Amino acid sequence: MKSDLWVEEKHPNIGLRYKVKDVLFSGQSEFQAVDVVDTFELGRMLLNDGLVMVTEKDEFIYHDMITHIPMFAHPNPKKVLVIGGGDGGTAREVLRHQSVEKCVMVEIDEMVVNASREFIPITSCELDNPKLELIIGDGVKYAKETSEKFDVILVDSTDPIGPAQPLFGSEFYNDLATCLNDQGVIVSQGESPFYEQTMQGKLMSILHDIFPVVSIYNFSNLTYPGGLWSFTYASKGTHPFKGVELSKVQSSNLKFKYYNYELQRSAFMIPEFQKENIAKYFKGMDV
Amino acid sequence: MKSDLWVEEKHPNIGLRYKVKDVLFSGQSEFQAVDVVDTFELGRMLLNDGLVMVTEKDEFIYHDMITHIPMFAHPNPKKVLVIGGGDGGTAREVLRHQSVEKCVMVEIDEMVVNASREFIPITSCELDNPKLELIIGDGVKYAKETSEKFDVILVDSTDPIGPAQPLFGSEFYNDLATCLNDQGVIVSQGESPFYEQTMQGKLMSILHDIFPVVSIYNFSNLTYPGGLWSFTYASKGTHPFKGVELSKVQSSNLKFKYYNYELQRSAFMIPEFQKENIAKYFKGMDV
Repeated sequence: MKSDLWVEEKHPNIGLRYKVKDVLFSGQSEFQAVDVVDTFELGRMLLNDGLVMVTEKDEFIYHDMITHIPMFAHPNPKKVLVIGGGDGGTAREVLRHQSVEKCVMVEIDEMVVNASREFIPITSCELDNPKLELIIGDGVKYAKETSEKFDVILVDSTDPIGPAQPLFGSEFYNDLATCLNDQGVIVSQGESPFYEQTMQGKLMSILHDIFPVVSIYNFSNLTYPGGLWSFTYASKGTHPFKGVELSKVQSSNLKFKYYNYELQRSAFMIPEFQKENIAKYFKGMDV
Repeated sequence: MKSDLWVEEKHPNIGLRYKVKDVLFSGQSEFQAVDVVDTFELGRMLLNDGLVMVTEKDEFIYHDMITHIPMFAHPNPKKVLVIGGGDGGTAREVLRHQSVEKCVMVEIDEMVVNASREFIPITSCELDNPKLELIIGDGVKYAKETSEKFDVILVDSTDPIGPAQPLFGSEFYNDLATCLNDQGVIVSQGESPFYEQTMQGKLMSILHDIFPVVSIYNFSNLTYPGGLWSFTYASKGTHPFKGVELSKVQSSNLKFKYYNYELQRSAFMIPEFQKENIAKYFKGMDV
């Protein structure tokens, strides 16, 4: 393309623009618009309904942090459930852990999976791993109906508008609690501590009503508005970092681009304004 | 203004746009273009040469983190030097510390100071504090010529293009070392760990040639490209967090919006890719 082509993630009062080399895919699924563009700065980029989901340059940050914090917090994660995560990056990181015997991934939108398979191999490269069971279906329905039990559950969702809305509800987390083993850990995409304070506080409050251990940790990527972003952490008792020794991370023999042992603890040390926001919804957060 | 007005921080391949209520000031100084606009999302915003320097909504993050980390690391900071920082926010935070007897601020561009005084009182509100000596002049020249000695030096600079270029050089830091007390600490705006890896590595390497203790810490604000940003830390021996007890922060009786005691340590826990980048320039970073 010779013209000056830009894609923009538009919000009412801010916009994030990226110069585009080429449009690789553009479709409309039953659930959302799905686009893949190749950008000059960030490589290939997946957008759902015009919001940037993942880029080749910074996908490692989100996928390291949603996966390795709970995988190391848990003493021995064998069975993992991923809700959403259609680009495949979260499942890819889960499957690097030697302890994992089975990973079930439930993605509602087949078009996201197929577009990622074709155009974003860096994230989708493990979707045919024999340890992965890929289900195209509704994660909310799956959580209600399955009789399987999991050690780690990762809710790798889009924002709470459109298809992901029920993933931010109380009923869904009650269902997840019933398919979580006793030492199990649930980590969920937790929105922006700046721009989504109400949503973040409500999600924490829902988790607090169901789980004895609830916390939140942060990371920074290049493409989400404001940079700083959160994952919520919930468990029936497993602490996010107190039981994690350096030797455990070292003996995994895994190499990371973002995650390291120090972040297992320090990612939970959140800024004061975020603490104060969460304290409006409940007191006594763990960590 | 009734039209759909936006300001954009333009880079070759990315752009950050903000919807604007009103243009409050627009001038061209000897050094740079200086604009103040009022935005819908972030309140009033100062731009130098089209780059966002500070906004009302998120200024507390940068100013908390440039100031309170070194101020608590130092055992008893009485004299503080701020190079740059024309909006006044850094001096404002310095002057909240009871131990401070004198703060010298050397800003090269009087237009930035005057525009901030008139339009951004939230940052400029302490510029007439009797403990502050405000010098309109060249910080590089000041560092070379002054016979004063300081406990904490904060290099609150713009990017290493235009007037701030010498602030990223070896000669400047050698001069700063001569006006730093033995327990003194120097913190400098350290650029983006994503987008300015070479610059960040070089700055760390320059500091490493001069100071026995060198480290780097991160914070996230809303308006710098990529969100994640760094401050470098250098001293003649004072460790950034090992000597800092919770009781010290508590007994200061200061309230913060971003900084807290946990961040004094955890802000230095940087992601793996950033560690690896710095290791290309020198081995054995402290912390």
